Amino acid sequence: MTTHSLGKIAVIGSGAIGGYYGGMLAHVGCDVHFLLRSDLAAVQAQGLTIHTRGETIHLPHVECAGSAEEIGPCDLVIIALKATANAALEKIVPPLLKENTALLTLQNGLGNEEFLAERWGADRVMGALCFVCINRTAPGVIAHLDHGSISVGEFRRPAQARTRAVVEAFRAARIEAEVADELVGVRWRKLLWNIPFNGLSIAAGGVTVADILADDGLRKVARLLMDEGLDAARRLGHDIPDSFADFQIERSYSMGPYKTSSMLDWQLGNPVEIEPIWGEPWRQGVAAGASMPRLEMLYHLLQRLSAKGGA
Amino acid sequence: MTTHSLGKIAVIGSGAIGGYYGGMLAHVGCDVHFLLRSDLAAVQAQGLTIHTRGETIHLPHVECAGSAEEIGPCDLVIIALKATANAALEKIVPPLLKENTALLTLQNGLGNEEFLAERWGADRVMGALCFVCINRTAPGVIAHLDHGSISVGEFRRPAQARTRAVVEAFRAARIEAEVADELVGVRWRKLLWNIPFNGLSIAAGGVTVADILADDGLRKVARLLMDEGLDAARRLGHDIPDSFADFQIERSYSMGPYKTSSMLDWQLGNPVEIEPIWGEPWRQGVAAGASMPRLEMLYHLLQRLSAKGGA
Repeated sequence: MTTHSLGKIAVIGSGAIGGYYGGMLAHVGCDVHFLLRSDLAAVQAQGLTIHTRGETIHLPHVECAGSAEEIGPCDLVIIALKATANAALEKIVPPLLKENTALLTLQNGLGNEEFLAERWGADRVMGALCFVCINRTAPGVIAHLDHGSISVGEFRRPAQARTRAVVEAFRAARIEAEVADELVGVRWRKLLWNIPFNGLSIAAGGVTVADILADDGLRKVARLLMDEGLDAARRLGHDIPDSFADFQIERSYSMGPYKTSSMLDWQLGNPVEIEPIWGEPWRQGVAAGASMPRLEMLYHLLQRLSAKGGA
Repeated sequence: MTTHSLGKIAVIGSGAIGGYYGGMLAHVGCDVHFLLRSDLAAVQAQGLTIHTRGETIHLPHVECAGSAEEIGPCDLVIIALKATANAALEKIVPPLLKENTALLTLQNGLGNEEFLAERWGADRVMGALCFVCINRTAPGVIAHLDHGSISVGEFRRPAQARTRAVVEAFRAARIEAEVADELVGVRWRKLLWNIPFNGLSIAAGGVTVADILADDGLRKVARLLMDEGLDAARRLGHDIPDSFADFQIERSYSMGPYKTSSMLDWQLGNPVEIEPIWGEPWRQGVAAGASMPRLEMLYHLLQRLSAKGGA
């Protein structure tokens, strides 16, 4: 299988995630077309630069466009927009579709695959979880700090041939990749961390992961929020052991004074992905019979804090 | 019974509460001595002014002192310091004591009577709940906005002759007053409002009572926090009906964009009374077998937010 087996690829969203994963695919010869807005002129003039693992990858010329119409029908559409901008997909996606075009969302939380499936059909939809520390430091410039693995799966069905093709392409691009046979279960595993750490980092007034871990009360609340998520995930059919929550707390110590992406969004006055990370997990958990009093309160506090904007 | 039956009275704490209740007693002839710090010079020069119910009460000369030693032994000590300053009482109280000196705390929340009883004996200790909207607008100047009733009781015993004497003195001073035979039960009734409204007004980023009531999520969380308090209060032996919580929500609508005292403290960077309003009720409720996940989370968020200072 070659990287060209994916055919023509569009990447929607010019942030760190889209630039990194799309850029790494382009670097190994995939036919990647970036849909850009604010960064279009810079990327047209200077290309894309990725600082990763002590080396710099410079792509002097990448295919980029300011509209989906310019790109036209693709085989694979990688969606790396913030979920808070999903409404924009209504106009962006249709010109990119042909029969069998796959839609792969790299977005956070719950509800994004459903959003795509309702509009363009469940069979098109794939999802992936990115475990990566990454920043866009300037237009067209991405700093890859740590991690980077990606788990790719299908919406409500087991892995297909195309799932394995996508994983192979990422591996060819030197990205650690795996097939997720149970995508939603993997999403819940990531949420078990994002719910408490992204949430408390805002609700406690703008604090880092290290601040939460060093505060006896907040660390305990973080673990109790994980327990609520664990119970909800299990009721929804995802078998996650208690030891996974312990591990999620333990592995956080190495992050130090890391600022969660939600906290950065909040401090910059950008929209926070409230619904996919807190609202939808709370609704799904409660519908499955879970008791989630802490998540409910955190969700409602974050709605208000997000509407007010960051401190 | 005359107002002089209370004997010599010291008022500790020069804020709105001490100035108002002490000033009203002085106005009707009680022998009131104010212990002042920052406001001492202003009150010595200009006396005390209380704007109340469309009239202005000016007391050109009030007895005031900068140290407890200057005041000397009293019959009644009214404590109107913030609970966060309780450590200062260790030095203030002893010079004011003689045999049978009563200590009446007007402070918020739980734990203040216990603090006094442990140090100076349970029999001395009385407590009162003030239901009042009041501001200190300048040194020695108090604006009484609304309400003003006071419920006076004894620490861990029913009302005594002195309880009724204090109530009579307040009534003579035109303050609505009543004997609280079950002081801690009255404290819990007040906490049912303070826990959610003072707490969420900070945790939601500095919002008013009207903001909380207008937000579907926060209003629901406020009611759920009341339910947790109701359950704790009942387990602790205080019989409060469900209708009281409904009434507490309903009566809040008339307050409009009222800023809770805790939120003002937080915004001004002053210490917030975290332990008496959230910490001690949480500990006592949990010890009595109540489940209080929301209060626990709110308490730990407020500890952190208070340590960071207001937005």
